[in-house]
Amino acid sequence: MSEELKTALGVDFGGTSVKAAVIRGEEVIGEMERIHTQELTNPDDLIDAIVDKIGDIKKRHPEIEAVGVGVPGAIDFKKGMTYNLTNVPGWKSVPLRDILSERTGIPTMLENDANCMAFAEWKYGAGQGFDNVVCVTLGTGVGGGLILNGKMYRGNQSAAGEIGQMSVDLHGVDGPYGNNGALERYIGNRQIGELARQMYFDHDGTKLSEADATPEALSARASQGDEIARKVWVRVAEYLGDVLSSIVYLLNPDAIVIGGGVAYAGKLIFEPLSKNLASSLSTEFFEALKVVPAKFGNTAGVIGCSAMALEELSTN
Amino acid sequence: MSEELKTALGVDFGGTSVKAAVIRGEEVIGEMERIHTQELTNPDDLIDAIVDKIGDIKKRHPEIEAVGVGVPGAIDFKKGMTYNLTNVPGWKSVPLRDILSERTGIPTMLENDANCMAFAEWKYGAGQGFDNVVCVTLGTGVGGGLILNGKMYRGNQSAAGEIGQMSVDLHGVDGPYGNNGALERYIGNRQIGELARQMYFDHDGTKLSEADATPEALSARASQGDEIARKVWVRVAEYLGDVLSSIVYLLNPDAIVIGGGVAYAGKLIFEPLSKNLASSLSTEFFEALKVVPAKFGNTAGVIGCSAMALEELSTN
Repeated sequence: MSEELKTALGVDFGGTSVKAAVIRGEEVIGEMERIHTQELTNPDDLIDAIVDKIGDIKKRHPEIEAVGVGVPGAIDFKKGMTYNLTNVPGWKSVPLRDILSERTGIPTMLENDANCMAFAEWKYGAGQGFDNVVCVTLGTGVGGGLILNGKMYRGNQSAAGEIGQMSVDLHGVDGPYGNNGALERYIGNRQIGELARQMYFDHDGTKLSEADATPEALSARASQGDEIARKVWVRVAEYLGDVLSSIVYLLNPDAIVIGGGVAYAGKLIFEPLSKNLASSLSTEFFEALKVVPAKFGNTAGVIGCSAMALEELSTN
Repeated sequence: MSEELKTALGVDFGGTSVKAAVIRGEEVIGEMERIHTQELTNPDDLIDAIVDKIGDIKKRHPEIEAVGVGVPGAIDFKKGMTYNLTNVPGWKSVPLRDILSERTGIPTMLENDANCMAFAEWKYGAGQGFDNVVCVTLGTGVGGGLILNGKMYRGNQSAAGEIGQMSVDLHGVDGPYGNNGALERYIGNRQIGELARQMYFDHDGTKLSEADATPEALSARASQGDEIARKVWVRVAEYLGDVLSSIVYLLNPDAIVIGGGVAYAGKLIFEPLSKNLASSLSTEFFEALKVVPAKFGNTAGVIGCSAMALEELSTN
């Protein structure tokens, strides 16, 4: 199947900046460019800055055919609306897609950032060639995106894939919506740190500093043979495995792609996770299932939303 | 949209009999016919009996254009194979679809029974008009089927929808595959009975008989004002609500259709379930979600597999 690769611009909203990159297929053309959002305290200023940036890039790259925008938080895919964008105060119910496409003159698509990452992994990454792929991203929070029957699956309100809100324990700790046992409240970065500090303290009274309890630091310790750090990852794999096995029983996917902060942990988490899934899935399910690390790091967002923008605009 | 209704034969494998009915749309034409399976101890005899039954019905109803067969247990939809059909000893890896279509001369489709029920509810029942529907059936076990993006969703091995194997508690009781906290091990009919007997005993030492601890009996008691029986249903709704809220966070469906034995309980379970979902889902998710009882009872299987057979055969 030969396919002529088109070029699009990926715009990815992060915690402190908006990243923009020209993308052809899975290739990032040139540099990732950034708009720092700290000094832009209202939506209008940020939109002006993004419109300027897109115009500027389009001048240098007239081959750009579409813009794909990935945002954290709730969106309406069909209407192109963003809601409650947590990192921009005052941002509520903004028809961002139509504003950008009208002001830049370039066809624009708006999507949730976790869906963009999932799409990138399915189209060009670790989930390529599979019809049904579950993508999980582990970071400050736990997010996800689903490709089902070879298509991005969005659900009724463009809100599917909230893997971090799924329950590991009906009597567990409260999630952000009152949902007991929300996975995110066990294996978000901060919670992994808290778990680690508790486990070190319980072991021999060690008071681990916050800096020594980041996922990166814990991976380094475990790789150097620290038994407690290793056990932290076994516990993380237990929580994650519980939710993933439930997802496998529900969706019977071909593959699960795991990305985000956990990349630091590598086999420290993949090995116990695999053991966990082997013991909680039926043999048929386990043997047919691929569990793989994500291919893309922090470029997943821009690659995914640009690829999805091209696909959406060509089918509409 | 006008649609001329075609006629198909639905064949539904149950615990002690195989049911067959001529179906036009959602209408059961004439009587439900049965083949009793107890005396048929090997697959060949059962297949002979089914072929004879189909031939016999086809003579009386030459308008039948397709046969849809629904079976409990694992199948391969594309290959038309049944595996491990629990109620027929010696039944393993039988290419049932092709055997039946070759011997009867009628195009035949084979599907899992929970998927057939889900399809019936989506096409003609409580899930009609929705794009994304999760169907749950509560009985001896807990099963399910998914309609996603307006299509039956089967997953990689035709095995999606195993809602009964999803976990309510990562440290809970063992499920049949070693899966801790499998929902089915909490709210299968037998487990509801055990829970009830324990709750009555804990309350005042009452030793409830098995006959008084069936879902039907417990519904009757609760409806008559028995407070312990009412609390049994509240507990059942808690377990069910935990898994359903996880499913909603993952799939963001338009509707959840609940069928099976729980029909006996009605609002005894729907009221606490709704309360439960209200407290564990975000407001946006809860307000947009319909949770409804199934429309069809024991005809769901034959209606669903006949409708699906017609749809599959017209699209291939």
